[in-house]
Amino acid sequence: MHKKLFIPGPTEVRQDILDAQAKPMIGHRMKAFTELYTGLINKLKELLQTEHFVTVPTASGTALMEGAIRNCVNKDVLCCTYGAFSERWFKIAKACDRDADAIALEWGKVVKPEMIEEQLKKKKYEALAVVHNETSTGTRAPIEQIAQVMKRYPDVLLLVDTVSSLMGDKVEIEKLGIDVCLSSSQKCFALPPGLAIGVISERALKKAETVSGKGHYMNFLDIKDYFDKKGQTPTTPAVSLMYALDKQLDKMKAEGMENRYQRHLAMAKYVQEWAKKNFALYPEAGYESVTVSCIKNTKGISVADLNTELGKRGFAISNGYGKIKEETFRIAHMGDLTLDEIKELIKNIDDILKL
Amino acid sequence: MHKKLFIPGPTEVRQDILDAQAKPMIGHRMKAFTELYTGLINKLKELLQTEHFVTVPTASGTALMEGAIRNCVNKDVLCCTYGAFSERWFKIAKACDRDADAIALEWGKVVKPEMIEEQLKKKKYEALAVVHNETSTGTRAPIEQIAQVMKRYPDVLLLVDTVSSLMGDKVEIEKLGIDVCLSSSQKCFALPPGLAIGVISERALKKAETVSGKGHYMNFLDIKDYFDKKGQTPTTPAVSLMYALDKQLDKMKAEGMENRYQRHLAMAKYVQEWAKKNFALYPEAGYESVTVSCIKNTKGISVADLNTELGKRGFAISNGYGKIKEETFRIAHMGDLTLDEIKELIKNIDDILKL
Repeated sequence: MHKKLFIPGPTEVRQDILDAQAKPMIGHRMKAFTELYTGLINKLKELLQTEHFVTVPTASGTALMEGAIRNCVNKDVLCCTYGAFSERWFKIAKACDRDADAIALEWGKVVKPEMIEEQLKKKKYEALAVVHNETSTGTRAPIEQIAQVMKRYPDVLLLVDTVSSLMGDKVEIEKLGIDVCLSSSQKCFALPPGLAIGVISERALKKAETVSGKGHYMNFLDIKDYFDKKGQTPTTPAVSLMYALDKQLDKMKAEGMENRYQRHLAMAKYVQEWAKKNFALYPEAGYESVTVSCIKNTKGISVADLNTELGKRGFAISNGYGKIKEETFRIAHMGDLTLDEIKELIKNIDDILKL
Repeated sequence: MHKKLFIPGPTEVRQDILDAQAKPMIGHRMKAFTELYTGLINKLKELLQTEHFVTVPTASGTALMEGAIRNCVNKDVLCCTYGAFSERWFKIAKACDRDADAIALEWGKVVKPEMIEEQLKKKKYEALAVVHNETSTGTRAPIEQIAQVMKRYPDVLLLVDTVSSLMGDKVEIEKLGIDVCLSSSQKCFALPPGLAIGVISERALKKAETVSGKGHYMNFLDIKDYFDKKGQTPTTPAVSLMYALDKQLDKMKAEGMENRYQRHLAMAKYVQEWAKKNFALYPEAGYESVTVSCIKNTKGISVADLNTELGKRGFAISNGYGKIKEETFRIAHMGDLTLDEIKELIKNIDDILKL
């Protein structure tokens, strides 16, 4: 039996989107692909309300994090860490032989604008790397306030991982001055994994001209040059996943992005009220994610057993991430899931746990 | 109308394989994924007759070329260039700030073992990078003879791009001493693009321990460590493409690999005899690819017009690559295509060109 996915990626993918992948193959140097690809880039720009360069590399979002570091940082980058994925920024920078500093916070906390400003005053950085929505802890960084601080440091690029928020929680990329905004297909896009989505500013592209060792696969300048000349990708793209993305963008437009954001808010509110009543929320108050709730296991239930029981009923939620496994559990309310589906899940959890 | 693809990737994908992508999504940290992934890795090892570490990154083959350089080369790599993809090895090495030398030959030629030995005698390299099957020129490098030379230089790793040959032209990875053998899903595997396939020797993994700046996404050691511990991939994989790969490996086993190689040989023989009768072959004699024929346009036909006419009849072939466009054209006979389908294509070309 299929388990409906209330996990923070891959999230549940609707059958019509799954089926869109099965269309016959086309060549990625054919006119048909150019039409598909330039079409979906335009749709992305429209839905994200951006005129920045948009690209869809075949890879997970992590590869695009690495691309952001390799293209935008010669040496010094400031990372803010408060969970597994924000810590990944730091690890990636180190793995690429960059000098990374971290504003390191406990899991469940989020970075505040004043902490960033304090560090930026002390040392000159080329970029700041943050995670908007920390999937491991269910927190949402105050990106709007962080952006305000960054406006006072125009030489520092703003790199934002929106892997588990973009298309579910509104991110005003250009207004916030985000230089690399990156995401992934299997979260709020409600697609199978395999595609990354990157929105790259002029400023980031200019910076890339001055950085050496960018490599080939994620060289932003080569990717942009190829797109400008041919409307294609320099390396072979995952065509079938792009069929699905194209169809999904049409469905998102039909839903309306504001409606989509409101639906995510309503699901988050429902789950978080339930969680506060029966357990407690893991994130520091006021910084709860709109797309995934991380719940403190105050009742000491066996999360693994709960998930096994849910599995028998056709649902899957997530245990806590890494070191906070069993101490927490996570319910994702992202992508195409509806409030009714969330209610049905919660009803089943109540029933299993006799809440 | 769908055009059946006789292009050198993406090649034609059968409907049952396309449909396999549309199965419901599963989480990549669930047991179901571990079973899928460890299962397909075992199937790959069986079909490729290797005990080396095998991995399937979500990316194009090019990303794995870059991974091979970043993991196996600190400084000096020798590249052999005789077409667009072998030149890519050189470009990638330079883009990763490595010191690359090239044995540069005209397109259509291939590197010979004695050329490599001459260079290896002159200078100490960490690795040799070659392309087995040069898709742009339809040539096949004498990898068996090159491997003989390399046995005399045990400190030099052998990195081989088999993107357009693996699973169509037999490559005895371990016997030849190949340290990184890399391929891509959309060629002889007859799958949609989006997955790379890497076979990595113990020697390459040992070398990776001594190389800095490997990065994160293609860090061979991290990838192996995660697989050994959890039977999964460290970053989110393209699950739906893995459904298709898993099914395709079963079909390959059912066909029998020797039968599969023979089928490719028979298709190559048919196309190349036809080409020699009506045109000429582009590769230097004796080094013709088994999976793609590059044909010299000795009749001065318009390849673009031929392809337009073929398109109306439901077929697609490839024009020449880059600088040899129109001067050559290419017919791929790879993946799941059959001799009957090749005969039907050729009959249509004969008819259009009145040969």
